Amino acid sequence: MSKVGFIGVGKIGQTIVYSSIVSGAVDEAVIYDIIPELPEKFEHELRHAFATKGIKTEILGTNNLDDVAGMDMVVISAGKPRKPGMSRRDLFVDNAKIMMDLAGKLAPKNPGAIYLMVANPVDMMASVFMKYSKEYTISTGDQVETMRMRSYIAKKLKVPVTQVDGFVGGEHGEDAVVLWSTVKVKGKPIDNFNINKQEVEDYVKKIPGEIIRVMGGTTWGPGTIIADIIKAVSLNENRVMSIATPRQYEGQIIHVSSPIVVSSSIGPSLETLLDEKDRWHLNSAMKDFYEAYMENMKQLEQSLKPT
Amino acid sequence: MSKVGFIGVGKIGQTIVYSSIVSGAVDEAVIYDIIPELPEKFEHELRHAFATKGIKTEILGTNNLDDVAGMDMVVISAGKPRKPGMSRRDLFVDNAKIMMDLAGKLAPKNPGAIYLMVANPVDMMASVFMKYSKEYTISTGDQVETMRMRSYIAKKLKVPVTQVDGFVGGEHGEDAVVLWSTVKVKGKPIDNFNINKQEVEDYVKKIPGEIIRVMGGTTWGPGTIIADIIKAVSLNENRVMSIATPRQYEGQIIHVSSPIVVSSSIGPSLETLLDEKDRWHLNSAMKDFYEAYMENMKQLEQSLKPT
Amino acid sequence: MSKVGFIGVGKIGQTIVYSSIVSGAVDEAVIYDIIPELPEKFEHELRHAFATKGIKTEILGTNNLDDVAGMDMVVISAGKPRKPGMSRRDLFVDNAKIMMDLAGKLAPKNPGAIYLMVANPVDMMASVFMKYSKEYTISTGDQVETMRMRSYIAKKLKVPVTQVDGFVGGEHGEDAVVLWSTVKVKGKPIDNFNINKQEVEDYVKKIPGEIIRVMGGTTWGPGTIIADIIKAVSLNENRVMSIATPRQYEGQIIHVSSPIVVSSSIGPSLETLLDEKDRWHLNSAMKDFYEAYMENMKQLEQSLKPT
Amino acid sequence: MSKVGFIGVGKIGQTIVYSSIVSGAVDEAVIYDIIPELPEKFEHELRHAFATKGIKTEILGTNNLDDVAGMDMVVISAGKPRKPGMSRRDLFVDNAKIMMDLAGKLAPKNPGAIYLMVANPVDMMASVFMKYSKEYTISTGDQVETMRMRSYIAKKLKVPVTQVDGFVGGEHGEDAVVLWSTVKVKGKPIDNFNINKQEVEDYVKKIPGEIIRVMGGTTWGPGTIIADIIKAVSLNENRVMSIATPRQYEGQIIHVSSPIVVSSSIGPSLETLLDEKDRWHLNSAMKDFYEAYMENMKQLEQSLKPT
Repeated sequence: MSKVGFIGVGKIGQTIVYSSIVSGAVDEAVIYDIIPELPEKFEHELRHAFATKGIKTEILGTNNLDDVAGMDMVVISAGKPRKPGMSRRDLFVDNAKIMMDLAGKLAPKNPGAIYLMVANPVDMMASVFMKYSKEYTISTGDQVETMRMRSYIAKKLKVPVTQVDGFVGGEHGEDAVVLWSTVKVKGKPIDNFNINKQEVEDYVKKIPGEIIRVMGGTTWGPGTIIADIIKAVSLNENRVMSIATPRQYEGQIIHVSSPIVVSSSIGPSLETLLDEKDRWHLNSAMKDFYEAYMENMKQLEQSLKPT
Repeated sequence: MSKVGFIGVGKIGQTIVYSSIVSGAVDEAVIYDIIPELPEKFEHELRHAFATKGIKTEILGTNNLDDVAGMDMVVISAGKPRKPGMSRRDLFVDNAKIMMDLAGKLAPKNPGAIYLMVANPVDMMASVFMKYSKEYTISTGDQVETMRMRSYIAKKLKVPVTQVDGFVGGEHGEDAVVLWSTVKVKGKPIDNFNINKQEVEDYVKKIPGEIIRVMGGTTWGPGTIIADIIKAVSLNENRVMSIATPRQYEGQIIHVSSPIVVSSSIGPSLETLLDEKDRWHLNSAMKDFYEAYMENMKQLEQSLKPT
Repeated sequence: MSKVGFIGVGKIGQTIVYSSIVSGAVDEAVIYDIIPELPEKFEHELRHAFATKGIKTEILGTNNLDDVAGMDMVVISAGKPRKPGMSRRDLFVDNAKIMMDLAGKLAPKNPGAIYLMVANPVDMMASVFMKYSKEYTISTGDQVETMRMRSYIAKKLKVPVTQVDGFVGGEHGEDAVVLWSTVKVKGKPIDNFNINKQEVEDYVKKIPGEIIRVMGGTTWGPGTIIADIIKAVSLNENRVMSIATPRQYEGQIIHVSSPIVVSSSIGPSLETLLDEKDRWHLNSAMKDFYEAYMENMKQLEQSLKPT
Repeated sequence: MSKVGFIGVGKIGQTIVYSSIVSGAVDEAVIYDIIPELPEKFEHELRHAFATKGIKTEILGTNNLDDVAGMDMVVISAGKPRKPGMSRRDLFVDNAKIMMDLAGKLAPKNPGAIYLMVANPVDMMASVFMKYSKEYTISTGDQVETMRMRSYIAKKLKVPVTQVDGFVGGEHGEDAVVLWSTVKVKGKPIDNFNINKQEVEDYVKKIPGEIIRVMGGTTWGPGTIIADIIKAVSLNENRVMSIATPRQYEGQIIHVSSPIVVSSSIGPSLETLLDEKDRWHLNSAMKDFYEAYMENMKQLEQSLKPT
C-alpha cells in the first residue's frame, strides 16, 4: 500500500497527481486544496480518466486538511506563485507562513510520512517545513533541471535522450549548476562531444521562463519528473536523482541538491563521488543557501512579531 | 510505426498528446497549433517529461501545417470554444470554416490517414471535415460520456469502476442517451441494483458544466479517454467504444455514436445488437442530428456567399 | 480488487500467472497445483521477480485446493497433456474426470466467480466444467489462433502486426476456421492483398506442433494471450476476442468460439455480424462439436459406471 | 533505438528476452542460439505474444551468429550448465572456451556495445569475455541475490517488498554477502527489526537450489531481474544495482559486485560509501575471486595447449 497526500492542486499539482497515479505509484490518494470545490471536481475528472484505464486507485478530493491522515508520503505544492514586482524574499515570507501552518497540522496526523516539497522557493520551503514539523522532508531540487539538461544535449547532438546521462546540482533555480563531471553521452564523457557548455547552462536557466511566457506555466515537464520521484520512493526503485535532502550546516538544516539514491529509504548521497570542481560548486551553493536562508528567516520572524 | 498528427494544442489537446504518448500509442508525433511558439514550447515540456521516463517518441512542435504530412492518424482539436451569448449555430459556422480549411490542406498530404475529431460540436465537425476532405473521419462521440456514466455508477454503488460496464450513445452533449440495455454491474443487468437512472443521466449531462465552472475546462477526463481511442487504433486493441462513425442518412454522411469495435480497422458497429428501446433512441438521434446539421449547413453556405 | 485463482501451474500455467500479474490484471493471486512444493517454489520465484518491479500483488502458492476461495475469477490449466498413442477421446475422459472433481470443490467456495478454461480439449472441458459446477465458464477458444493468424499475415506482408485485424473461430485446434470476412490489413479487406489463404490456414493449424517439436511445448504465445483475456475481464476493457462462451444446442451447453466482447461482463457476441459464409462455418462447428461432445460424454459415463 | 542481441535462449535466456521486450527496453532484438530451429520457433512464440499486446519490437531468431551485428547491448546466456559430478573448475574451462570463441566473433561486429554476462560462473565469465574481446563487459552479479534478500525479509516481516531496501555484494553464488549496512525497512536500519540475519543469509544461498530441485531451474526470478538490468541501461534509469563491473586487481580485470549506478553509462560505484565491515567483505571477495580466477585461467591455458 502506498498512500499519498497531495496538498495543493494548481496546474502543476494536478499534473503530479495524474502522472504519479497513472504510473502505478499510488494506491490511495487524498487530494487537498483550499479552493472550494476544486479538489472535488478534480476527483471527478480523475475518476473519468481512470474508468477508461481500469485504474483502481482510491481517490478523495477534499477541502478538509484533516482528511490527509495516515499517509506514507505527503506532496506539498501549495503556496503562492511569485507575482510581478514581488521580491524573492517576500515570496519566502508568504509561503513560509503557509508551511508553518501546514507543518503544525500535517505532522501529528501522518506519523512516519516522507514530505516532498514542490512549492517555491522549493529548497528553502523544505527547510522551513522540516524545521517546524520535525519530519523528514525532501525537495524536488534540481531533478527537473537535470532532465532539462539531458533533453537539450540530446536534441543538440541528435541522439536519443536515453543516451545522455548526468546531473544538475546546487540550489534549484538560477543558481543551479551542471555537474559536468557526471555528464556522459553514450557512456563517454561530454568533452568528447561538440557541445557548448555555456549554451547548455543558459538553456537550463532560461527555458522555464520561456515556457511560462508562452504557456502561462510549466506543467508537463516538472509534473512528470516530480511524479517519477514519488514513483522511485513508492516502488523502491533505487534511482539516483538530484533532489535536495536535509543536511546540517552551522547548526541549521538546509536543503541543497546533489545526486542521491531514491528508494523507500533516501540515500546515500553520491556527493563525495563527484570531482573536486563539482564538489566545490556544491559547497559554495550550501554557503549561499545558508546565508540567504538565515536572512529570510530573520525577515520571517520579524513579520511574525506582534506589533 | 504509428505517426500521429495533432492539430490544436489547447488545454485538452495537450492532455491528449501527453496521455497518448505516455501510453505507448505514438511512435512519431507532429504537433501543430496556429499560436506562435506554443507547439515549440510544448515540445520542450514534453522532452523534459520524456527524459525521465525514457520515452523515445520523436516529437516535432510546429506552426507550419505542412509539417503534418505522411501521418497514420490526425487528431483535430483546433477550433473556437463556445463563448457566452454565442449560439450553437454560430459555433458551428465558425468552426466549420476552420474544418473546411483544414480538410483542403491536410487531406492531400496524409493519404490513407484516419481523422479523429475532437473540436466542438464534435460529431457535426466530423461530418463537415469528411464532406470536404473525402477522408475517413471519426468523432470522439460519446466515449467520454460512457466513462462518466460508469464512474458515477461505480462511486454510487461503491464498487470498483472496473466492474461497471455499458455505453452512452446518440449525439455527443446534452442529447446523449444512456443505452441502459448495455449497462451491467459485476456482469448483472443494472436493474438488479438500487440506482436512480434519472440521477445517472443528469450526472452525465451536468458534470462537464460543473467541472468547467470550477476548473475552467475539462481536461484530464476527456484527454485520457480520447488518448485511449488513439491507443485502441494504434495498438489494434479491438476495444468496443462509443464513438461516432460515418453513416449515410438521406444521402448525407452524418456522425452519431453507438458502440463499435475500434482497432486498426473501425467496425463492426454493435448497434443491431442493442435492444429495441436503445435502437429507437439512436434512430431518433440520427434524425435530430440530420435536421440540425442540414440547418447549420444552410447557414454555413449563406455565410460563404460573396456579398 | 481482482482476486484470481490459478489451478495448475505447469509451463503454460506459470506463463499465464506471470504475464497476467505483470500486466496489472491481478491484485491477489492464489496459485494451486497438486504437485508437492511446486506452487510454493513458484511463489518464491514470483516474489523475487516482483521485488525488482515493485509489484505488490499478494501471492499464495498452495497444495491445498481449499485456499482457492472467494475468487473473482478462476483459471484452470490443470489436466493431463496428450501422450503419444493416446486418442483425443481418452484425453477427454481423463481430463473430464478432473473437471468433475474440481467443479465440485471450487464452485461452493467461489460464489459468482468466472471460470476460464485452459486445459485441453479446452472447449469441451469448459462445457464439462460448467455442466457439473453450474457456474459461468468460458474457454480460451480461438483467441490464440487469432493472434497466430495475425502475426503470420503481418510477417508475410511485412507490415506491423498492429495493422492486421481479424479473427479465427469455431472449435479450438485443428478444426478452427479463419473468419475471412473479418480479416483486414490497414483497414482494408484481405482480398486487396497478395496472400495465400490456404497458407495462412495451414500456419495456424501447424505452428503449435512445430513449436512443440522444437521447444517441448508452447508457452510464451498462449500464456501471454490468455493473460490478456484475464486482463480484459479484470480491467473491464471491452476487447473483442474470439473465445468460446456457453451456448444452448439441443438442450446442452456447448462452447464454440466467435468474436465476443470481453469485459467485466462477457458479451454480446458479434456472431450475427459476420458474413454468411463465416456464420455457416460457425454453425457447422457447433454441430460437429455437439456430436463429438455427446460421444465423449457417453464414454465418460461408461467409464464412471461401477463395474 | 535500443538494439539488443541475445546469445543463448535456454529457459532463462527466453525469460530475459520476453521480460525485457515486454517492459519496453528493446526496440530491436536479434536472438541467437546454436540449437537448430530453436531461435526461429521462439521468434514465432514471441510474435504470437506481441500480437495481443501491440508490441512492435523487431525480432529475428537466428542460428547465424553473424546476424548479431550493430547491437547496442549483447546479453550472453550461452554456456553449459553444471552437471552432477562436474567440478566448478571444469565448468569454468568448458564455458571459458565458449566465451573466447564468442569474444572473437562478436566484438568486431558490435563496436561500442555493452556486454552483459549471464552464463555461469557469471562473474568469471565476464572477466574472461572482457579479457579476450577487450570490450566493456558487466555481469549480472548479485542483483538476483539482492532481490531474493529483499523478498525474504518482506515476507518474514509482513511488509510490502517495496519497503525493504538494501544490497547483496561480493561474488555471485555461495560466497555472496548481505551488505547489512545498506539494508533498511521503511527507511530504518534493519537492526530495528526482529529478524535473524543468519536465516536471511541462508535463504539467499539455498533458495536457488531449492527451486531447481522442484522446478528444474530458476527462470522467473533471475529472468525478470536481469531484464531490469537491461531496462536500466536502455531507458537510462540511473538505478543502483548490485552488478559486477570490471576492476583492476594485480594487473588483471576481475568482476565483483557492489552497488553501482546503472544507466546508459555505468557508474559510479557506491562501494566507498559502504561501512567498513561491508567494504572489508568486498575486499576479501576480490582477493578470493582473483585467486580462484588465476587458478582457473591456468587450467584453461593448460587445456588449450597443443598436445
